[in-house]
Amino acid sequence: MTFDRWNPLNDVPSFPAVRYAAIADRIGRILKTRNDVLLIQAEAVVALEAAALSLARPGLKAINIVTSMYGGWFGTWLRRGGAEVVDLSAEAARPITLEAVQAALDAHPDIEVLSLVHAESASGIRNPLEEIIAFTRSRGIVTVVDAVASIGGHALNIDELGIDIAVIGPQKALAGPAGLSALSVSPAAWKLISKPGGPRDSILSLLDQKAWLDAGRGALPGTTAPLEFFALEAALNRVEAEGVDAIVARHVRAARATRAALAAMGAELWIDALHGSNLLTTARLPNGADPAALLSVAPGSIELSAGVGPGAERLIRLNHTGQRARFDIVLGNLTAYGMALRRRGFKADISAAVDAIALHYGD
Amino acid sequence: MTFDRWNPLNDVPSFPAVRYAAIADRIGRILKTRNDVLLIQAEAVVALEAAALSLARPGLKAINIVTSMYGGWFGTWLRRGGAEVVDLSAEAARPITLEAVQAALDAHPDIEVLSLVHAESASGIRNPLEEIIAFTRSRGIVTVVDAVASIGGHALNIDELGIDIAVIGPQKALAGPAGLSALSVSPAAWKLISKPGGPRDSILSLLDQKAWLDAGRGALPGTTAPLEFFALEAALNRVEAEGVDAIVARHVRAARATRAALAAMGAELWIDALHGSNLLTTARLPNGADPAALLSVAPGSIELSAGVGPGAERLIRLNHTGQRARFDIVLGNLTAYGMALRRRGFKADISAAVDAIALHYGD
Amino acid sequence: MTFDRWNPLNDVPSFPAVRYAAIADRIGRILKTRNDVLLIQAEAVVALEAAALSLARPGLKAINIVTSMYGGWFGTWLRRGGAEVVDLSAEAARPITLEAVQAALDAHPDIEVLSLVHAESASGIRNPLEEIIAFTRSRGIVTVVDAVASIGGHALNIDELGIDIAVIGPQKALAGPAGLSALSVSPAAWKLISKPGGPRDSILSLLDQKAWLDAGRGALPGTTAPLEFFALEAALNRVEAEGVDAIVARHVRAARATRAALAAMGAELWIDALHGSNLLTTARLPNGADPAALLSVAPGSIELSAGVGPGAERLIRLNHTGQRARFDIVLGNLTAYGMALRRRGFKADISAAVDAIALHYGD
Amino acid sequence: MTFDRWNPLNDVPSFPAVRYAAIADRIGRILKTRNDVLLIQAEAVVALEAAALSLARPGLKAINIVTSMYGGWFGTWLRRGGAEVVDLSAEAARPITLEAVQAALDAHPDIEVLSLVHAESASGIRNPLEEIIAFTRSRGIVTVVDAVASIGGHALNIDELGIDIAVIGPQKALAGPAGLSALSVSPAAWKLISKPGGPRDSILSLLDQKAWLDAGRGALPGTTAPLEFFALEAALNRVEAEGVDAIVARHVRAARATRAALAAMGAELWIDALHGSNLLTTARLPNGADPAALLSVAPGSIELSAGVGPGAERLIRLNHTGQRARFDIVLGNLTAYGMALRRRGFKADISAAVDAIALHYGD
Repeated sequence: MTFDRWNPLNDVPSFPAVRYAAIADRIGRILKTRNDVLLIQAEAVVALEAAALSLARPGLKAINIVTSMYGGWFGTWLRRGGAEVVDLSAEAARPITLEAVQAALDAHPDIEVLSLVHAESASGIRNPLEEIIAFTRSRGIVTVVDAVASIGGHALNIDELGIDIAVIGPQKALAGPAGLSALSVSPAAWKLISKPGGPRDSILSLLDQKAWLDAGRGALPGTTAPLEFFALEAALNRVEAEGVDAIVARHVRAARATRAALAAMGAELWIDALHGSNLLTTARLPNGADPAALLSVAPGSIELSAGVGPGAERLIRLNHTGQRARFDIVLGNLTAYGMALRRRGFKADISAAVDAIALHYGD
Repeated sequence: MTFDRWNPLNDVPSFPAVRYAAIADRIGRILKTRNDVLLIQAEAVVALEAAALSLARPGLKAINIVTSMYGGWFGTWLRRGGAEVVDLSAEAARPITLEAVQAALDAHPDIEVLSLVHAESASGIRNPLEEIIAFTRSRGIVTVVDAVASIGGHALNIDELGIDIAVIGPQKALAGPAGLSALSVSPAAWKLISKPGGPRDSILSLLDQKAWLDAGRGALPGTTAPLEFFALEAALNRVEAEGVDAIVARHVRAARATRAALAAMGAELWIDALHGSNLLTTARLPNGADPAALLSVAPGSIELSAGVGPGAERLIRLNHTGQRARFDIVLGNLTAYGMALRRRGFKADISAAVDAIALHYGD
Repeated sequence: MTFDRWNPLNDVPSFPAVRYAAIADRIGRILKTRNDVLLIQAEAVVALEAAALSLARPGLKAINIVTSMYGGWFGTWLRRGGAEVVDLSAEAARPITLEAVQAALDAHPDIEVLSLVHAESASGIRNPLEEIIAFTRSRGIVTVVDAVASIGGHALNIDELGIDIAVIGPQKALAGPAGLSALSVSPAAWKLISKPGGPRDSILSLLDQKAWLDAGRGALPGTTAPLEFFALEAALNRVEAEGVDAIVARHVRAARATRAALAAMGAELWIDALHGSNLLTTARLPNGADPAALLSVAPGSIELSAGVGPGAERLIRLNHTGQRARFDIVLGNLTAYGMALRRRGFKADISAAVDAIALHYGD
Repeated sequence: MTFDRWNPLNDVPSFPAVRYAAIADRIGRILKTRNDVLLIQAEAVVALEAAALSLARPGLKAINIVTSMYGGWFGTWLRRGGAEVVDLSAEAARPITLEAVQAALDAHPDIEVLSLVHAESASGIRNPLEEIIAFTRSRGIVTVVDAVASIGGHALNIDELGIDIAVIGPQKALAGPAGLSALSVSPAAWKLISKPGGPRDSILSLLDQKAWLDAGRGALPGTTAPLEFFALEAALNRVEAEGVDAIVARHVRAARATRAALAAMGAELWIDALHGSNLLTTARLPNGADPAALLSVAPGSIELSAGVGPGAERLIRLNHTGQRARFDIVLGNLTAYGMALRRRGFKADISAAVDAIALHYGD
């Protein structure tokens, strides 16, 4: 902890306006993009709502991939803005397939925008981002990617892939503050956003935010929340010190160890390892097991929780996000889950699980 | 500074969900209301936009009083939601008059909503809130008051006056954090908001926020920004220790001392004392003076700034908001302004100004 | 985290002097004593040095029990102050025995002071405090107890036992700040300290500190370090919320689980369970194992370290102090130790260890 | 404010040991010295006591200049360590003179050590450091300078002057934390300190501290107080950003403005301007005035206090230390003092005082 200069006349220090541009540049480097980076002074779901409404117009046609409630909302927002939206849903517990996207685009050749969630924080599903973007790119479609729950947990190279709008928040794999978010916006996305009819004078207007870029990236529009930016700077310091690629590798290892250990223990993955997020693992409970009853007998201080949303009634989530992506938490999660299973009369080979984890943390 | 328990697995501590209800109650007591209090996780301008859009519908008729850009925005948002809006503007540098409001309401007897800013932070204008609300109340009109720049600086008794929606932020007279805001909402306001057609699934939906009340006021909807709530609690501790009435009295004294001193110095008030905010004082520069040139020769570390917005080109703002509402800042502002005037060749009787301040800080 | 009022003219907030007395009272309740509590603005080793030098005089006879380097220092300080000191050392890896203390006191019937360390943070040895104090009390001997590494980890009832001087620091089982410490001082201890010849005008003078009590417990003597006191208040809030007895119980559980698991794994305890500290466990390495080589292959983020001091060359310390006294850390320590052993070619039954831990975290 | 990585298992973050050496180097640059810099984990008075006791031996002869209680203590500590000490006192309200020092050294040609306080924080007296050191240097005497209340307020070039031991604390002109301090130690000073017989195993042993240098400046000896070091780093960041010479210039200006204003107001300086500290100004009250009665009618939030110590019964201290060394505080101090005088029936030309301040803050 270090102490910046406090505004001597307020409880809360002022954040120096001159540092916003540097923050945007640092986020750009983490996202590996030269696109514009906007800083939004609200949680990431607001940045997503703003992106949808700033793009949507009567006449705009969009495909919205729905693999969670976040995806569902994005379609709602696009429609509220007047767009014509094709919702493309995946099977339960499955990511969308490239084939489904290709088919939908073939059926709707006038689509201008495609939106999807990279990885889902509730279900742990991860969509095949690289393949989808490669395909949409070949068709000149503007893409919007909710990367809130993937940045830091999965490789994400915005410019190499060619993502037009990527929305991130610092509070998941990057372990930062939650009260602000960021977007990268490509020239093609700006072109759509700048068409007449978009929202103005609103927290949901990316055009309003663009004024910050045009004015030389000094003070942000609106009243800023300094604590969030100080905390973001601290998170960026930490992220840069570790390196975003190393952070991704740490999540990959935690995910692999967790999944191997679940398999060794005899538990069942809900999402297969190829299509899962590296931030959490969802296990399917054995028949007859109840999540709440199970959690009530698990030992404390570990990162287990019940599944969220429809279809998730018999799931347990093992969290290995951010600073939880490490040996002792992965180990504690598995052992606690195994102990809870045993206490409820189910089998669980904890020893085999521990051996599997040991293998992944072997160096 | 005290240190709460940090989430051991994140840079930022979790805010205990169980404390949100207490925060809402504490804000209710500061506002002197038994209405519902909502906590919004974004700066107060977002709470205002949400209030406007949650009320607005095609068919709703509203009068919106415009004495600043904030008032202007409120009308924009009401219209965006489909409402029919009569904008009621005051003369430059003047608050709206009760007579103008009465005339407008007589001319539009079917008005359901009236909105106004209590005190303006840019211009220092204060509208005659008590008189206007007494009148609209007699007609059963739902009132929306932007109290962001008046709470803590002026007496504000929501229930005694009968204000339906009051929006506040902690970052002005209360000297708290800026990344969240709050609204009080009366049953009559909820009735309008609950009519079909309002926004849902949005940061701008008060109905979405109402779900928090209905669910027993536990965890807030969305991802919370813990730092803001910890800082808000600290500000509430301070506000309660001093007492909101004492805070108002401190601002009244700072405003009176500043204005008396300006008069004694031979400077001209832009807003007359009866109609000004207690958070800042705007002085009109003598003919031939330029704000930037003047500020460039004022000694440092004081709270002077140039006027903001059209019509304010020849104004200087003397800030006595929050923890600045105290003797040494009031004194520094006046002396620095006087010194700057003299250095640019204008007259300024600093001694008389200091004597006037002494009179107001005499006990 | 909450934010107190900052001194507007300094980076560091002032700590309100009016709160020192409350802090002393809160520490007194944790120590279960009505004796005077002094607050020392330096780490606990300074409080220990001050106690020794404030008691020591030419002509004073003391027995000093040496089970670690801290005990050794205490004798050095007593001698530097002119006292005649009998050092009473225990066998390696063993606490002192009551019998040894009784024999020493019988051999030296004119002893006025006896000093001992309750539990050792380097070796994990715990001396039989209750028995020793019961005996010395019957002889009217003034006792000095270094409780830095036992407070919060072991039951400690100062007044019931009749300890004259107890020295604590907040940074171990209480998980608080390290830059200050506290002592409880009985009337009998004050009587010795107040005899002519003690140090004055010194950080090491308890009589200087006593002036604070005599002056009504307002501002502390010297320049205070506000950050330490804000952090101490936060720690006290947390300690009181959990309850000191519950904190002790948490350490007891962690210690028992760790020791049972080591036994189940086939590892050897250095200190037997009856005589060990609840803050850490020391394991003896198998023949041919080297601590550094072993630690280099243990997976990260766990709380293992090599033994400290002579005789500890082949020991590993498993830390379960403070917020580490919990399931996932205990589990991680054991598993990591077992994995390291296996990687170096030694046997370790990790599964049996995990089962043993499960048994202790079974409710 | 930025947030470093917290120790996930403790309320208080660990301070990275690798950063201590950099801190010492940064302090060395501020002191303009290549001598060793030691970091002491207690307030500066402890560093002073340690310096005295580490130098003192039976047979050592020292001159100790007494212009305040701090000077008095230094002699006490030297004597406690067995040294033969000549106390050299100045007239009341006067610094020591070079002539007095020369005469004392001529009378005691075997003096090895000379100690003095550069500037006094209680009285505001400043001793003629440069002249005295130039003289003692010509005689090969080891000098100890208490620079706690001068660093940042007065030019201090340790190596150019040739000061052997300088003790500083960050909490005055540098506006940093108070729970630690630092010393610079020259080879000549180390030679004396290293003679047999000095204290060991003590917070007061500089030889113990030297072990840190010898071991490569990694972890500090003892248990560290991380909050203090994080706060010190923040203060160093700020000090380096402003520049220590600019900080000194800011204090010079505040002191000159305060003194000119007091003269203009008709008040009397206690210390003449040539011999005063730049951190505070002491004014002598008019006949018949009482400090407490006067302060009780001064308006709030300014930095006035009564004189401290014998001979200071009729003094008022105007504080312009650290972040108080700025226009609005200087102005507030003077005006409040003038208002208080007038309210008690004394004359005070506030206008003339304000004009004098204006003159010094004219650029």
